[in-house]
Amino acid sequence: MITSKGNPRVREAAALGKKAKFRSETGLFVVEGPRMFAELPRERIRCVYATETFYRERNELFQGVPGVELVTEEVLKAMSDTQTPQGVLALARQYDYRLEDLLPADAPAHLMVLETIQDPGNLGTILRAGEGAGLTGVIMDAATADLYSPKVVRSTMGSVFRVPFVRTEDLRGTLALLKRSGVRLAAAHLSGSVEYDREDYTGPTAFLIGNEAAGLSRETAEMADVRVRIPMLGKVESLNAAVAASVLMFEAARQRRAEERPRLR
Amino acid sequence: MITSKGNPRVREAAALGKKAKFRSETGLFVVEGPRMFAELPRERIRCVYATETFYRERNELFQGVPGVELVTEEVLKAMSDTQTPQGVLALARQYDYRLEDLLPADAPAHLMVLETIQDPGNLGTILRAGEGAGLTGVIMDAATADLYSPKVVRSTMGSVFRVPFVRTEDLRGTLALLKRSGVRLAAAHLSGSVEYDREDYTGPTAFLIGNEAAGLSRETAEMADVRVRIPMLGKVESLNAAVAASVLMFEAARQRRAEERPRLR
Repeated sequence: MITSKGNPRVREAAALGKKAKFRSETGLFVVEGPRMFAELPRERIRCVYATETFYRERNELFQGVPGVELVTEEVLKAMSDTQTPQGVLALARQYDYRLEDLLPADAPAHLMVLETIQDPGNLGTILRAGEGAGLTGVIMDAATADLYSPKVVRSTMGSVFRVPFVRTEDLRGTLALLKRSGVRLAAAHLSGSVEYDREDYTGPTAFLIGNEAAGLSRETAEMADVRVRIPMLGKVESLNAAVAASVLMFEAARQRRAEERPRLR
Repeated sequence: MITSKGNPRVREAAALGKKAKFRSETGLFVVEGPRMFAELPRERIRCVYATETFYRERNELFQGVPGVELVTEEVLKAMSDTQTPQGVLALARQYDYRLEDLLPADAPAHLMVLETIQDPGNLGTILRAGEGAGLTGVIMDAATADLYSPKVVRSTMGSVFRVPFVRTEDLRGTLALLKRSGVRLAAAHLSGSVEYDREDYTGPTAFLIGNEAAGLSRETAEMADVRVRIPMLGKVESLNAAVAASVLMFEAARQRRAEERPRLR
């Protein structure tokens, strides 16, 4: 039982919650709360901290989990990113996907490419909605928010454990690779020439979404095969990034379902 | 020039930022920052506070604005909801729409009905995306977050000044009125019997969206003419409320545009 907030393991967990650099150096991230802990794949777990009460009351969650360490409520709070930690906190090993993992062999790719998305809530929401819309992967540039920050992990509601993703230092190099693999790049752009629902997304498709304030950089937008626009009424200048991404990926999902319908009859 | 944080007007502005009840009693709300102030309709303004520097540098924003009171940076910060207020803060009169204002005479209604949406960011995002999707109005039950809280006002990016809305103590009574007015009620429901894109939303339509965690209450869902489901892949149980609302209203916008296309030829 860890009872002291000065314990090095307490400081390690707290630092993993706060510092992207430390997460990156150690290859670890923090998973908090019963719901996220239940969804965390067991093979990802490096160690688990739980209060005695939680461990006793939710013992079924710990079946086959090695290395559970009991801690006091006060210690768990010192480890946690939240004001009211919910009894359990795990350190998990980060994923190490390659670009090929985002391009399934048996279905057309459906990718979301994010350039400098800075709001953690937007990033988490895109992962969560993306799993629902059938994204085969998410690609982020190095300036996008850290997917492993506790706030992003929480807001994915578990999708971070299931949607493959790649972070790239060379976004345009990655886009060139995608194009050579036969993926069509559709950039969401306020001055796009085509209404988004007039394009066909049933083939391998990657949507490009830019920064909340500045949109896509010119160089990235220029690599797109098509620039699509979500027509807007009123005086709205732009949509929230997660909303724009969702409208596009659920349109792709809609088209893919519609294409399957005749075969079902 | 107001230089003391103890000034009653400073305390009034701060209280309007913090307390929904005080906003409701006075019929006022706070609008902060140059962008939102520029979009605030002039006839809504009750008074404006600005720092001397801001007033001098952005004088064009104050054309025809009565009652500008200069304040120190420190005083503005004491009035403001944000850590870094941006030079200007206005007190504005609340809107007083009636249900008829949400039902245009010359176009089919396109309404979003919100039951107990609690996250201010979700509410603001729904207003902002809703203006873009052509909503003719938003209806909220009394348990939905306060639309006039500074956080919601900010996240609407100005749509709060343009999309008509009604807050109702009797949501089901309001829904009954809508039905009698010929508006079709489509409830977003995880166990909906119809895929959302198989319904026709070109006639007068109101979408019903429920609480982030609990969804729509059974009584409200039962009033709907149809329960629609956004098909989801993976293990996603539900979508973020703002995402679900956006997928539905942009589908309605898409259908309405598609309906207009033949006439344009």
